[in-house]
Amino acid sequence: MNSLGVFTSGGDSPGMNAAIRAVVRSGLRNNMKIFGIRHGYEGMIDGDIFEMNGCDVANIISRGGTILRTARSKRFMTKQGREKAYENLNKYGIEGIIGIGGDGTFHGLKDMINETSFKTIGLPGTIDNDLFGTEATIGYDTACNTAMEAIDKIKDTASSHERIFLVEVMGRHAGFIGLETGIATGAEDVLIPETPTDFKALVKVLEKRIREGKKSAIVVVAEGDEMGGAFDAEREIKKLSNLKTRVTILGHIQRGGSPTMRDRVLATRLGYHAVEALLEGKSGVMVGICKGSVVFIPIEDTFNKKKIVEQDEIKMMPFLL
Amino acid sequence: MNSLGVFTSGGDSPGMNAAIRAVVRSGLRNNMKIFGIRHGYEGMIDGDIFEMNGCDVANIISRGGTILRTARSKRFMTKQGREKAYENLNKYGIEGIIGIGGDGTFHGLKDMINETSFKTIGLPGTIDNDLFGTEATIGYDTACNTAMEAIDKIKDTASSHERIFLVEVMGRHAGFIGLETGIATGAEDVLIPETPTDFKALVKVLEKRIREGKKSAIVVVAEGDEMGGAFDAEREIKKLSNLKTRVTILGHIQRGGSPTMRDRVLATRLGYHAVEALLEGKSGVMVGICKGSVVFIPIEDTFNKKKIVEQDEIKMMPFLL
Amino acid sequence: MNSLGVFTSGGDSPGMNAAIRAVVRSGLRNNMKIFGIRHGYEGMIDGDIFEMNGCDVANIISRGGTILRTARSKRFMTKQGREKAYENLNKYGIEGIIGIGGDGTFHGLKDMINETSFKTIGLPGTIDNDLFGTEATIGYDTACNTAMEAIDKIKDTASSHERIFLVEVMGRHAGFIGLETGIATGAEDVLIPETPTDFKALVKVLEKRIREGKKSAIVVVAEGDEMGGAFDAEREIKKLSNLKTRVTILGHIQRGGSPTMRDRVLATRLGYHAVEALLEGKSGVMVGICKGSVVFIPIEDTFNKKKIVEQDEIKMMPFLL
Amino acid sequence: MNSLGVFTSGGDSPGMNAAIRAVVRSGLRNNMKIFGIRHGYEGMIDGDIFEMNGCDVANIISRGGTILRTARSKRFMTKQGREKAYENLNKYGIEGIIGIGGDGTFHGLKDMINETSFKTIGLPGTIDNDLFGTEATIGYDTACNTAMEAIDKIKDTASSHERIFLVEVMGRHAGFIGLETGIATGAEDVLIPETPTDFKALVKVLEKRIREGKKSAIVVVAEGDEMGGAFDAEREIKKLSNLKTRVTILGHIQRGGSPTMRDRVLATRLGYHAVEALLEGKSGVMVGICKGSVVFIPIEDTFNKKKIVEQDEIKMMPFLL
Repeated sequence: MNSLGVFTSGGDSPGMNAAIRAVVRSGLRNNMKIFGIRHGYEGMIDGDIFEMNGCDVANIISRGGTILRTARSKRFMTKQGREKAYENLNKYGIEGIIGIGGDGTFHGLKDMINETSFKTIGLPGTIDNDLFGTEATIGYDTACNTAMEAIDKIKDTASSHERIFLVEVMGRHAGFIGLETGIATGAEDVLIPETPTDFKALVKVLEKRIREGKKSAIVVVAEGDEMGGAFDAEREIKKLSNLKTRVTILGHIQRGGSPTMRDRVLATRLGYHAVEALLEGKSGVMVGICKGSVVFIPIEDTFNKKKIVEQDEIKMMPFLL
Repeated sequence: MNSLGVFTSGGDSPGMNAAIRAVVRSGLRNNMKIFGIRHGYEGMIDGDIFEMNGCDVANIISRGGTILRTARSKRFMTKQGREKAYENLNKYGIEGIIGIGGDGTFHGLKDMINETSFKTIGLPGTIDNDLFGTEATIGYDTACNTAMEAIDKIKDTASSHERIFLVEVMGRHAGFIGLETGIATGAEDVLIPETPTDFKALVKVLEKRIREGKKSAIVVVAEGDEMGGAFDAEREIKKLSNLKTRVTILGHIQRGGSPTMRDRVLATRLGYHAVEALLEGKSGVMVGICKGSVVFIPIEDTFNKKKIVEQDEIKMMPFLL
Repeated sequence: MNSLGVFTSGGDSPGMNAAIRAVVRSGLRNNMKIFGIRHGYEGMIDGDIFEMNGCDVANIISRGGTILRTARSKRFMTKQGREKAYENLNKYGIEGIIGIGGDGTFHGLKDMINETSFKTIGLPGTIDNDLFGTEATIGYDTACNTAMEAIDKIKDTASSHERIFLVEVMGRHAGFIGLETGIATGAEDVLIPETPTDFKALVKVLEKRIREGKKSAIVVVAEGDEMGGAFDAEREIKKLSNLKTRVTILGHIQRGGSPTMRDRVLATRLGYHAVEALLEGKSGVMVGICKGSVVFIPIEDTFNKKKIVEQDEIKMMPFLL
Repeated sequence: MNSLGVFTSGGDSPGMNAAIRAVVRSGLRNNMKIFGIRHGYEGMIDGDIFEMNGCDVANIISRGGTILRTARSKRFMTKQGREKAYENLNKYGIEGIIGIGGDGTFHGLKDMINETSFKTIGLPGTIDNDLFGTEATIGYDTACNTAMEAIDKIKDTASSHERIFLVEVMGRHAGFIGLETGIATGAEDVLIPETPTDFKALVKVLEKRIREGKKSAIVVVAEGDEMGGAFDAEREIKKLSNLKTRVTILGHIQRGGSPTMRDRVLATRLGYHAVEALLEGKSGVMVGICKGSVVFIPIEDTFNKKKIVEQDEIKMMPFLL
């Protein structure tokens, strides 16, 4: 293989730049031509493609976001859009493709695998950590630490004013961020889609706490909890009690920022092995981490199978109460 | 003077603990008895008062929130409530009072000055920086840095996705936080109550930017802008254009967190001088900082007169555009 | 089992407080009496022991250091010292012991196992990550992130002045911190005890870099590299070249600070399972994490067997060059 | 005036990039040609000069270091070197010069003023805060916060191990960083060049503390204290007592990192006014901040007159003891 294209797609996540850097550096080291594709599948369709050298990735390992930009692409979901994209890749002589993103990105890669002979590799880049086949996704650790630090700050106010705060964290389909930041901040409860929310029990716990003298509390709510987000949770609590609550939505701050050590190292390892995999002729797989080792997972498994939150940590939830 | 009471009231702000520490340490050094009053005026009415020693303030200089807790008190607005409070202060033999807070706190102090012979001193503790007579309030610098760091993170996503973000910062009546964090993050515009918001001009600027190739933008909106908060701004922009915007409300993270160097030093200086002022027989004043020096301002001036944002920095706003 | 004692020993590490909290909370939940032992084995010998309740551990999950204090104890290495300690434990009716620390702490636990019938459990608390039988030790993730952020700052100066910085990180016997922070900061090279240091090759790489135009560089040096620390490395480089280098020793900042999400969650899990293990009658083991699952390792294995750095990451080192 | 050149010189400081950005943006806004000069006076002599546009300064407001690089120049101290530099400036048609740096930078500007007709303006860019005529220098606030956060971390270990730490901060000729970080971290003492160090008194205080039960302590030492740095202080303490101390040198981490809100706003204001000043025909002055307002100080005053530390804060020092 003499040339590869790399792109980021879907929601941005911290560490995407570190992954791009590792891909570019590993590729150049193996005397390949490296092409950056801007704005994910959109740039593939529009031909927004450029050759990258070592300078393009200098000092980006510590930066949030993605220098290749990102987007969601409806056009790539059409046959016509994809054909335009394949044409562009051929025009540049690109043989291998490395796509960094989540669920949506990998669906696109699957189409490519089915329809073309490009060698394609996926790298898990999403803060949500909800891809089957890898213990950790690039950006997850940073997002959790950002959310945790924000909740630490909110705890100052919660305890100064003796208030109950419902803090909504990201996680549309999964409770990874919610569960681990809840444990890490000593939250009174964590509402995540993986476990049924029992508001009666929650209200009882909070009321008991107040009677015992601890008048402030943090309840972490995953945006995708089956009962809804933090405002919905507040409504339910108000139906059942006179508890005074405040809602804070952490929002987009969870996506950005300089990646943590772990996300930078993970991105570097996965980027390195993505290039190695292409050179060995692998295709149609995501490079992931499983039990500390690099593994290769069929791309369709990453979205067809379901990754579950750490069951052992679920036990820490009642422990918190 | 042999004894003093200290309390925090209103919204908590980072550095309140550093101020409490300085008051306690300075008081003890001058052989005074120091009483902590919990929950602001509420604790004064309820007699939630305890004697403090050096250990009570050990290692709190770096902590957000307030160890004395805080509250807003409706009861202190009644004659009856205040009389109960005065009774309690007398019961403990408290002669001097140091109240740390904002506008509302100082209105309470003014009542006390009018109705009693307690010597009373106010310390400016609010993230909003909107008290006349002091260049800086305790907590303002930390809140600005927290907001700035959050916006830095949002910029990663804004530029990765090429989106326009409307970021709402605190400031119900004043644009201090908005103006300075807007300058510090290189925002495209800042909407603050002190300046009229011209949405037509804003839309024009944003559209021009996009034509020129810069497709991401940050607009900082003070929650108290005369046109409303960030969601209101978004509505206006949508009326005038097809620009795609996202709203993020930074919310309560701006109140908490470990105080910055400047807030700790400011709180220490003001706390120290509050005790000195009581010992010199001063009363009815707020201790503030003006042009780098400690000053004493009649407490009623702090809320009757209006502090304005730095006019020189207003010039930096068009500069940003 | 009705009562347990918990202590921290050896060098402090971020997350020790989270572990103490989890032990105390889990124990109380199981209706046990929990005793805190101050200053590690020293306090055991001196009878510096107190009963703990839920309030003692409120809000400590986010704090660095250890509320139980820590120390190294020569007296516990003597038969006489240990007997005094056992006597004290018996006096308080303590049946189970949970010791949080590293190598030295576990040697002490081993003596206790050999000489008494106390049930003893070890928790890995050290920033160095060099205990066999656990993928991660409590404090390692935080220390790495602290070191990484410090090196990020030094890179600003390195690239502004176009200088070569030799940055010494902790790790007396192991290169875990050095290797992962080196990868995470995009260092030009990493000198760790696990790999032989070839200064000629290093000088050649640095000189090549300069010729190619990149005039700044970071070389991360583990304090325990077989060639010595950063000052020793500088001396060797000067012998072989005219390269101008600067040395920075990161030092004790790596031990402190609020723990990361990962260290808090790890400490909570291990603390929870330590209590469960005691209740199940386990003894003589360290609770660790292996491939994501909680495991129990004979305490003597933790120091008799050698944990090695991730071999896959070693490959990232030449990649960096 | 139609064109200006901008450069950074001497030690780098956080906020230099924000100042460069403000100069470039303000200049372009006034339809000037802006030239960046790399490596300070070195680049002026070598002709390392390039025209800058808006893109060159995009997103640099949040970055530490300086995109123009910096250096100290011996050649500019020679007549011959300076003539070469002037020639280059003329070659590019540069009429105005804005130099960002400290003492050494301003001596160079003074030569330029004496020998040429270039309009020259200085901006105070140094972490040391030791330039006469301005309350604050660009980078000082960030350096103090970095040092403070590092000392906060060291306090975790100091109090866990009950040790005395001597922490050396930057400040070769002045105690600004030492004094304010000492106050902000609740240090037991601060050793700065502006006040005589009485080791006997210091030892007495530390010994008294230990007798009273507080066994940990932080002593902040400015590297330029008249008695020497932290290692020298340790030696003196050991001569007079059996106190066990540890030394940590914070070093270069104090120079780098993303600038604080205050440094970014200060740099933006000063950069803006530097361009305005040139347009008004001013020359031979430093733009500074005095009592909150922008002021213009004859360049020779900045190094011939001595700026002193805040005397009011000196009073906080014994208060700390």
